Amino acid sequence: MPDPTLLEAFPTPTDAPLVIEHVAEEFTSVCPKTGHPDFGEVTVLFQPRAAKDGGVCVELKSLKIYFHSFRDEGIFYEAVTHQIRDDLNALMKPTWMRITTNWRGRGGIRSRIHADAGTVPHQ
Amino acid sequence: MPDPTLLEAFPTPTDAPLVIEHVAEEFTSVCPKTGHPDFGEVTVLFQPRAAKDGGVCVELKSLKIYFHSFRDEGIFYEAVTHQIRDDLNALMKPTWMRITTNWRGRGGIRSRIHADAGTVPHQ
Amino acid sequence: MPDPTLLEAFPTPTDAPLVIEHVAEEFTSVCPKTGHPDFGEVTVLFQPRAAKDGGVCVELKSLKIYFHSFRDEGIFYEAVTHQIRDDLNALMKPTWMRITTNWRGRGGIRSRIHADAGTVPHQ
Amino acid sequence: MPDPTLLEAFPTPTDAPLVIEHVAEEFTSVCPKTGHPDFGEVTVLFQPRAAKDGGVCVELKSLKIYFHSFRDEGIFYEAVTHQIRDDLNALMKPTWMRITTNWRGRGGIRSRIHADAGTVPHQ
Amino acid sequence: MPDPTLLEAFPTPTDAPLVIEHVAEEFTSVCPKTGHPDFGEVTVLFQPRAAKDGGVCVELKSLKIYFHSFRDEGIFYEAVTHQIRDDLNALMKPTWMRITTNWRGRGGIRSRIHADAGTVPHQ
Amino acid sequence: MPDPTLLEAFPTPTDAPLVIEHVAEEFTSVCPKTGHPDFGEVTVLFQPRAAKDGGVCVELKSLKIYFHSFRDEGIFYEAVTHQIRDDLNALMKPTWMRITTNWRGRGGIRSRIHADAGTVPHQ
Amino acid sequence: MPDPTLLEAFPTPTDAPLVIEHVAEEFTSVCPKTGHPDFGEVTVLFQPRAAKDGGVCVELKSLKIYFHSFRDEGIFYEAVTHQIRDDLNALMKPTWMRITTNWRGRGGIRSRIHADAGTVPHQ
Amino acid sequence: MPDPTLLEAFPTPTDAPLVIEHVAEEFTSVCPKTGHPDFGEVTVLFQPRAAKDGGVCVELKSLKIYFHSFRDEGIFYEAVTHQIRDDLNALMKPTWMRITTNWRGRGGIRSRIHADAGTVPHQ
Amino acid sequence: MPDPTLLEAFPTPTDAPLVIEHVAEEFTSVCPKTGHPDFGEVTVLFQPRAAKDGGVCVELKSLKIYFHSFRDEGIFYEAVTHQIRDDLNALMKPTWMRITTNWRGRGGIRSRIHADAGTVPHQ
Amino acid sequence: MPDPTLLEAFPTPTDAPLVIEHVAEEFTSVCPKTGHPDFGEVTVLFQPRAAKDGGVCVELKSLKIYFHSFRDEGIFYEAVTHQIRDDLNALMKPTWMRITTNWRGRGGIRSRIHADAGTVPHQ
Repeated sequence: MPDPTLLEAFPTPTDAPLVIEHVAEEFTSVCPKTGHPDFGEVTVLFQPRAAKDGGVCVELKSLKIYFHSFRDEGIFYEAVTHQIRDDLNALMKPTWMRITTNWRGRGGIRSRIHADAGTVPHQ
Repeated sequence: MPDPTLLEAFPTPTDAPLVIEHVAEEFTSVCPKTGHPDFGEVTVLFQPRAAKDGGVCVELKSLKIYFHSFRDEGIFYEAVTHQIRDDLNALMKPTWMRITTNWRGRGGIRSRIHADAGTVPHQ
Repeated sequence: MPDPTLLEAFPTPTDAPLVIEHVAEEFTSVCPKTGHPDFGEVTVLFQPRAAKDGGVCVELKSLKIYFHSFRDEGIFYEAVTHQIRDDLNALMKPTWMRITTNWRGRGGIRSRIHADAGTVPHQ
Repeated sequence: MPDPTLLEAFPTPTDAPLVIEHVAEEFTSVCPKTGHPDFGEVTVLFQPRAAKDGGVCVELKSLKIYFHSFRDEGIFYEAVTHQIRDDLNALMKPTWMRITTNWRGRGGIRSRIHADAGTVPHQ
Repeated sequence: MPDPTLLEAFPTPTDAPLVIEHVAEEFTSVCPKTGHPDFGEVTVLFQPRAAKDGGVCVELKSLKIYFHSFRDEGIFYEAVTHQIRDDLNALMKPTWMRITTNWRGRGGIRSRIHADAGTVPHQ
Repeated sequence: MPDPTLLEAFPTPTDAPLVIEHVAEEFTSVCPKTGHPDFGEVTVLFQPRAAKDGGVCVELKSLKIYFHSFRDEGIFYEAVTHQIRDDLNALMKPTWMRITTNWRGRGGIRSRIHADAGTVPHQ
Repeated sequence: MPDPTLLEAFPTPTDAPLVIEHVAEEFTSVCPKTGHPDFGEVTVLFQPRAAKDGGVCVELKSLKIYFHSFRDEGIFYEAVTHQIRDDLNALMKPTWMRITTNWRGRGGIRSRIHADAGTVPHQ
Repeated sequence: MPDPTLLEAFPTPTDAPLVIEHVAEEFTSVCPKTGHPDFGEVTVLFQPRAAKDGGVCVELKSLKIYFHSFRDEGIFYEAVTHQIRDDLNALMKPTWMRITTNWRGRGGIRSRIHADAGTVPHQ
Repeated sequence: MPDPTLLEAFPTPTDAPLVIEHVAEEFTSVCPKTGHPDFGEVTVLFQPRAAKDGGVCVELKSLKIYFHSFRDEGIFYEAVTHQIRDDLNALMKPTWMRITTNWRGRGGIRSRIHADAGTVPHQ
Repeated sequence: MPDPTLLEAFPTPTDAPLVIEHVAEEFTSVCPKTGHPDFGEVTVLFQPRAAKDGGVCVELKSLKIYFHSFRDEGIFYEAVTHQIRDDLNALMKPTWMRITTNWRGRGGIRSRIHADAGTVPHQ
């Protein structure tokens, strides 16, 4: 079951702005309608708050284990995307964040979903 | 025959904005003039209304089966595009939506058609 | 229903050897187990018998229409490949022939199947 | 747990030789040492025995579900490859077969493994 | 109408062996069944007979004009290939020759055809 | 210091032949002459002995940790290649094995080295 | 006018075998039929005779100037290829030699021509 | 001046066979005819003799410095290739060796030269 | 000798704006300092004046023959570029024009030169 | 030693603006710290002053020989770039000029350096 308590954070190491992107190429969950596995790629793009404002960054190994907690969850693409956004937003309260999930397709349809927190600058 | 009653929806899982793209790579219908099959790719891009506004998202397997209902329909490219836009708009009433059909060609000409609902932001 | 009576032939135009390859990029039939459409590419490679031996070649437009006759047939990949090989072999009795079907995949598995008639020379 | 009873077969549709290749791009199991998920691609290449010899071919949807049964299994790459070879060999007793697993890598090492049954002709 | 009298030749300039390849990337004729234009690429590969044996080579500009004479001809792919082979063989009587036509496709089927004169060495 | 005691093995899971390839894309050691770091890729290709002959396969995580043990070693390219071959040969006594190291270059010279054990079949 | 007296040679520097390839990417001559310029690439591949047998190699700058002497010559592709082969063969009497000319095309037809001296080993 | 005394060797670390390839991408010497610099790439491919036969391998940094000693030498491409072959052959007496030089071109002609020692196995 | 009287023009066929680009891939002239041939590509990009203003466009075959008139001219790259700009400007008086020459290089230096007439819009 | 007296110039052939780019792909100098050779590419981009203002352009062969004069100079990347800019600026006093040096790297680091004279327009 998706478990946000697996996520750990460490203090942002600086007051100057950082933009961070993590790409997990091997994400899997289960389709709640058919029970078949889904496979996709998850991208986490964000600007952490500054050190002087108590900003934190998600720790990478904990992010991997958190993603593994979706492995046996029956959950729609949209809800996966939304939950990752909400869990990481609760952890880090970043200046802004964009979660993108890109699914390899099932029955000839492939999908891509964005969910934002805050105002994402033009990429 | 294209059958919008095949489409199913589930509630948008969040009030925060999502942008969703589904790409069906294997769409086929029949040319109403020659009776020969047409082959193309259909892209559905939209932002669902928020959960708090009663927003819904199209369910993926039902979308696949809805697309299959065009298989034996004699219908022009333009009408395919327009009907998908209207059926999905009636189902979801999304904030905005763009349907794109991209056809592999017949007699050396290939075609691409867009139909929008609402105001599609700059991609 | 797959209908070999749709196939037409014309006399091989010469006694000197020809090698002919036709590739149909847009083939579709139906999975007999799930009822969902399958999409693939069919390659027909053969050497017709010589004119002096009464050799014939399949006519291209009739081949296209013959392929369309599989559109609503519930049939396994292996049987599609075998039937095309048998129908074209019955029509042309070529010196040799290789049928290859290359399927775009269903449920994350894509497939490719060969069926030969006679001895196919090393390509 | 890997479950060969999930596999189904249908009679080879012809006495003439077929060569069949199935590629499952989204295979996942679990590392028995670390408990972390492994991701890879599995290729099944074989020539079924002829119809007149009682030959059978693996049915594609059952192959997909059989592959899903490895999802939560802690098992080494070599054993995955060997078990798929043995289970499919027991089901089909094909003229020859080659199983190839191609793993995306863990800790900076990517791996590829072949297991054969019978004499695989030069590809 | 295809007109072999347009072809001109000049004496092979040497007794030592030459191998010559001409590729015409823009060939067009007409489908005799539908009346629609066909587009393809024609390759002429040959070894002319030696000067001392009265060998000749096709002149390039005359080859281009000869190819233009197919422009309004209703003719099957196989017959195009065979006629070019026969006309050039009659003109040059080369040691060996291979004609290859590669067609861009009509109704979703693309084709490639070889016709040889003499024994073509392994390329 | 390169430490073969870090290597672990598990029994070959079958008597039927397997061919295994592991590619470590991120290998580093130190040039014994200049003290500068070297970077390369190490490929281990082998056929383990059968289960009934007491055959074993190298365990992947232990292989990774073994490769890490070269990190601070001053050692020539040739000796790296030879030592990996000898250590893995001592561990597994495979039917055959090929070690290939591919170095990114130092001072404008890049290098690639093979070391075999037993008779490597033509790849 | 093509002038073989421009070619210079120097003694092969060794008795051990050398294989030499020179590629002139910018060769130009004139079509004898239309008066228009032709542009192509000339490759000279050969093994010089050994020093102890009085072997010589063509000097590179003289080769370039010799190629320039074709600039205003009205000459067919085949004769260019044959003359370069004969002139270099007369100069060097190599163990074997292959001349290849590759022409950029005129009127939509591009051409490639080989002329050999001696027995060219399989490349 | 090319100085083979710059070359250093170390004992082959093993009796088992190694195949070694060094590629120097930045080699420069001077054209003896024009005085202009030449630029090229030098590849050294060889199998050293075994340790038990007193085999040695060229040390990489000394190879680099040896190549630098050609920097101001007026020397033809063929002689560069031959001298490197002879100097390395004298140093190592390898089982076999192939030297390849690949020159970037001067006046529109680029060249490639091979020189072997012993019998180079098919690559 | 470069001869602008070879250039011919025809009236612009419309009052609506056109932008035209001609690329001559095979241009050659002679270096005035060394007497060696130069090879390059010439691009002519322009907007002709409107029909109602008496605008004209350069005729393509005459442009080719005009380019051929540089073949034996000893002339620097800069002067080639400038003369083409001036000759075509005198012929057409276009709204704007950019001439670009791109030279394949001599002695290891390749060059590219722009010359404009009027105000070239941002490309 | 870098010698600006090797540089020659010729008068700008026109009053209309030209933009000129010369790229020397094979530049070499020596590292003043290690004595090892450096290899790089030098780009000279400039707009010469107009003919009516006494503008001149650098002559290409003299530029090549000037670059050769750095061959044995022990000089840092930054100083190479700065000296070329100053020497060419003194020769031509162009409207603007940008010198870019792009170095192939030493010890795994590659470098690129710009030096401008005047105001370089947006490229």
